[in-house]
Order: sequence, then structure tokens, then C-alpha cells
Amino acid sequence: MKSNAEFSPKEAKEKAEKLLDKAKAVFLATNGSLGGHPNVRAMAVAEHDGIARIWFLTGLDSDKILELVKDDKATIYGYSPRTMAEFRIWGNVVIADDPESRKHAWKDEYKEYFPGGAGDPNLRVLRFDVSNGMYSAAYNKSGQFTI
Amino acid sequence: MKSNAEFSPKEAKEKAEKLLDKAKAVFLATNGSLGGHPNVRAMAVAEHDGIARIWFLTGLDSDKILELVKDDKATIYGYSPRTMAEFRIWGNVVIADDPESRKHAWKDEYKEYFPGGAGDPNLRVLRFDVSNGMYSAAYNKSGQFTI
Repeated sequence: MKSNAEFSPKEAKEKAEKLLDKAKAVFLATNGSLGGHPNVRAMAVAEHDGIARIWFLTGLDSDKILELVKDDKATIYGYSPRTMAEFRIWGNVVIADDPESRKHAWKDEYKEYFPGGAGDPNLRVLRFDVSNGMYSAAYNKSGQFTI
Repeated sequence: MKSNAEFSPKEAKEKAEKLLDKAKAVFLATNGSLGGHPNVRAMAVAEHDGIARIWFLTGLDSDKILELVKDDKATIYGYSPRTMAEFRIWGNVVIADDPESRKHAWKDEYKEYFPGGAGDPNLRVLRFDVSNGMYSAAYNKSGQFTI
């Protein structure tokens, strides 16, 4: 059961940012998988600018690239398995290939997957531009925000 | 980088079942959220019949219900944060309200959310009928299966 208790937009945004910052993985949902099904996968956040822009690294051969070329609308979900607090942010994804984006999102720990480093020809940067979001504290208090 | 190593359909299905069985939460992705974005949330599995049918409990006031009424195509994703093994299953969701489905999926631990028990008027059962799926062991070996 949901209660009617609400966080202010400012509170909801701050709490979502904090949860994003702590999350080891978030869940990126895209449209356009097999036969019109949605798709979703766990991803490590490469960089984030508060909760307005979020960067991921991916391989050019990933299904995500095809799905996002067809439809750039996507959703990020994150949660704490411990407290069951959760956030959801809606936005659009830009597939970036310029040196600046690559450098911005690069971390040396990705070298296992991209041996060529930030310039690896198989690497692409996904920049998720957030439009709006929600935060919910374990089903009993929630709030919405826009960017 | 993906290698070309493959699990047989039988192996992939067995490994996905095992991961589903151990997962405390899986991620249910649906179509038809705000402005045509996908949606996704962590859910506890209420019951599962191997990996052919999976049951969840939800509240009648949940966004999921509206999204699934509009489009019953959905996707379940699960992963192990420890090994990064993952599975994805595609299917369709039936929203069930009959006493047999309610009883089949009910567990007493849900009483916190549904004080009326299996007969709670706010409770609905989501039965996810799997069509096909994939399992991947930490990016280096994967396999597909159909049900």
C-alpha cells in the first residue's frame, strides 16, 4: 500500500542522487528488443554530473547500441537491496564517439574490456540526459522531480 | 569483448533456472511508461515453475498494472552481483485475479503489504509466461534457449 506522504522535488532529487552515487550498478531499460519487448541490464555508472547527466561505457557490438539507435528513450532504475529505497529516472541517450566524451567517461578499470583504452575502436559512450525522476523510500514515502 | 563460446540450449536454460532460483530480486521491464519510455523495477519472485512460468504479487494501484494492460510484453532480467552472470527472459504477462492463482502465489511474508491475505482486494497476481531466454556467464560464454 502506498501512503500519501511525499518528498518535495528538492528532497526527492537529492535522495535519488545519493542513491545513484552509492549504487555499484544501476539498471538501464531500453525499448526495441526482440519482437517489441523492453530490454534491461545491470550497468556500472562511469560518470555522473549530479543526476542530470549519466555516462556509461559500452561495446559497439552490444544490443544496447542497436536498441538506442532505433529509440533513444530510456529509463534508469536503481535501488538499495538493504533498505528497498529506489529511484527511477527517465531520459534520452546520446551515443557519443568523440574524444572528449571518451576521456570524460574513461576509467582504467575498463581496460579489461577495452584494451585500447579511451580510444579503443570498439568503445562507445552512452550519455543519458535526464528529464525527470522519482524517488521512493521503501514504499511508504515518495517524491517526483524534474531536471 | 564477447567470445564465441556457447552454452547449449539445455545448459543455458539450466543455468538461468539456477540463477533465478537463487535471486532475491529480479528486474521486470515493461513497455508503456511515461511518454513511451520503458519501465523497470526490482521484484521478489513469488513462485516459479522452473523457468517456464514465474509468478509475482502486486498491488492493484501499481503502475505495472496499467503498463501491462496496455502491452503484455515484458522482460525479466536477473544477475549475480558477485559473478556478473546474468539471464534475460522474454515473455508475456497475464494479470490474474482468480482464487487458484492467488493461492498459488501467496506467501505469508506478503501480509505486510496485503493485510487481507491471498484474498486481499488490492492484490493481483502477475503470471509471466516465458517464450525464450538467454544466459551469460560474465561476458565470456553465453547461450540461448526457448521454452
